[in-house]
Amino acid sequence: MDKPFLDKLRKIDPYVPGEQPQATDVVKLNANENPYPPAPGVQEVLRTFDASSLALYPDANGRRLKAALAGRFGVKPTQVFLGNGSDDVLALAFQSFFCSDQPILYPDITYSFYPVWCDLFRIPYETVPLDADFCVNVRDYDRPNGGIVLPNPNAPTGRGVSLDFLEDLLQHNADCVVIIDEAYVDFGAQSAVPLLNKYENLLIVQTMSKSRSLAGMRIGYALGSETLIATLEAVKNSYNSYTMDALALAVGEASVKEEAYFQDTCRKVIATRERTAEELRALGFTVLPSLTNFLFVTHPKKDASVIFEYLRQKNIFIRYFKLPRIDNYLRITVGTDGQMDRLFAALKEFL
Amino acid sequence: MDKPFLDKLRKIDPYVPGEQPQATDVVKLNANENPYPPAPGVQEVLRTFDASSLALYPDANGRRLKAALAGRFGVKPTQVFLGNGSDDVLALAFQSFFCSDQPILYPDITYSFYPVWCDLFRIPYETVPLDADFCVNVRDYDRPNGGIVLPNPNAPTGRGVSLDFLEDLLQHNADCVVIIDEAYVDFGAQSAVPLLNKYENLLIVQTMSKSRSLAGMRIGYALGSETLIATLEAVKNSYNSYTMDALALAVGEASVKEEAYFQDTCRKVIATRERTAEELRALGFTVLPSLTNFLFVTHPKKDASVIFEYLRQKNIFIRYFKLPRIDNYLRITVGTDGQMDRLFAALKEFL
Repeated sequence: MDKPFLDKLRKIDPYVPGEQPQATDVVKLNANENPYPPAPGVQEVLRTFDASSLALYPDANGRRLKAALAGRFGVKPTQVFLGNGSDDVLALAFQSFFCSDQPILYPDITYSFYPVWCDLFRIPYETVPLDADFCVNVRDYDRPNGGIVLPNPNAPTGRGVSLDFLEDLLQHNADCVVIIDEAYVDFGAQSAVPLLNKYENLLIVQTMSKSRSLAGMRIGYALGSETLIATLEAVKNSYNSYTMDALALAVGEASVKEEAYFQDTCRKVIATRERTAEELRALGFTVLPSLTNFLFVTHPKKDASVIFEYLRQKNIFIRYFKLPRIDNYLRITVGTDGQMDRLFAALKEFL
Repeated sequence: MDKPFLDKLRKIDPYVPGEQPQATDVVKLNANENPYPPAPGVQEVLRTFDASSLALYPDANGRRLKAALAGRFGVKPTQVFLGNGSDDVLALAFQSFFCSDQPILYPDITYSFYPVWCDLFRIPYETVPLDADFCVNVRDYDRPNGGIVLPNPNAPTGRGVSLDFLEDLLQHNADCVVIIDEAYVDFGAQSAVPLLNKYENLLIVQTMSKSRSLAGMRIGYALGSETLIATLEAVKNSYNSYTMDALALAVGEASVKEEAYFQDTCRKVIATRERTAEELRALGFTVLPSLTNFLFVTHPKKDASVIFEYLRQKNIFIRYFKLPRIDNYLRITVGTDGQMDRLFAALKEFL
């Protein structure tokens, strides 16, 4: 059959989202989700929300949630941008800030969505190799570029950089926008927030998916200068004015208001992470230092893909990336202590 | 101050979302929102939703909502695409299907977002003038093009075209994707759904914002051939894999399941629309025939902008577009009978 309209379609390799195990009694340590529920105020928002108000459009500017975030971070509401998860924020930021012919730079081992956005938006890019220990060398970024995106801490390595490193990076890259992707920053890394009012070309992207246990609600945000945020808003409003639904706005606000619960949850995850790292080292694993809610590990005597498949059979789901340099590593999300105990038991059996 | 990074920012005219009146006791007839609440099952979903499940990512494929919509429209789930409101669906469709150097075509008077997306994605376009009565002439679209997008019924005119018209359009445009934007179709127009299995280049876009009273929840969808839907999914998954949050998916499903409530709500809006048209004609307005939840009207003796401002002072918000050909027209959303009575009273006072 002749289908002439096919010529006008976008040719793109389908990006396939990660595996979502359908079985029950699964230990799900593959998506860096938080094992604890969101702040109690979130359940209260859902229980008391008046459904009839959903007939009206939400506030396109998300004023209340922006005000809550501005208060938390000590910035102006006009320095806050909201998006439908941090992927939405990053996708809009790539379109908004990487508009030169020069290649943007990011590490060779990092969040796998960066090259996907570059391909989609036809942004030239170059990857910068991490060193043998998976550390970032700031001097590698001292070269002409169209922009920089760096996750801190990095994923899937879990390693973080210091505030001094970030300031050095910004000082040497005043002629481009530097995006610091802080999806995992709340688990112990140093945020770039103190640099916001000094560097107008700095954009910080965060998410409520990990540290605030709200992956299901799709709430991401960016903090930056009013110049950068205004550009993001213009592009967003030219794409979809109403990305945040009324419930996401209310739920996000409820979460931000419960700082003590948030801090407590992060502390629990960090404690379990440190205990897990110790246990895994005792089992012979090499464990990278992590400032995230996951651990990046390798075993000198066992093949990562074999461990991955073994655990999968036991209904324990972790993450294995068949990629250059890291194809003998495993990424393990930090769950509850009980979930980690099941992991240790299965690993002991295997080893 | 020297700001070299500014050169790398996207230059774009900020698109400003419509006015959201903040006062109370407002008659809000400016955003084509539904005056009735969503189906009762929606409130039940919110009341009983377990917030702890929000710690997990939502189903990126929205399987349950797709299955519900597929059942309602008699298509396969692989012929259904979900998005964060129909604006998200349309933005992705423009990126997915309008990838040639030929201009896409749409009416000169239509949804104001089309040129915004063309500018954002750098898609060439030509507008096709409606006739003097604001009707679409199908023969005007018999020319080389990169794609067609046509709202049926059209906005802000409210006029619809027949199924025969749509089939004629598709028969003469087999070499491009034809998008029929059915945001308002449930208020009396003929849907293109019966043509879906005959024309593989047809994409139908609908929304739950209007007829299902869920503007606050951001749920749009597209129906089309598996070829078109697969391309949309590939582009969407390269942009943001998780556009639909867990609550939007559950709320959408609950709405689709209450067909009788949905039909009843549409009937009530249509009845009030017909009564409103009669009342406005009695007041001397020229009222275009409408198949939507709004009326497009003009008064031979009074300036539209003056009527608009007068009503605004009375806390009655309608819509005025300062645009060529329609700058003496007003778009009035159909509210409850009580809301329309307040409108009539204010207009009588004014006239």
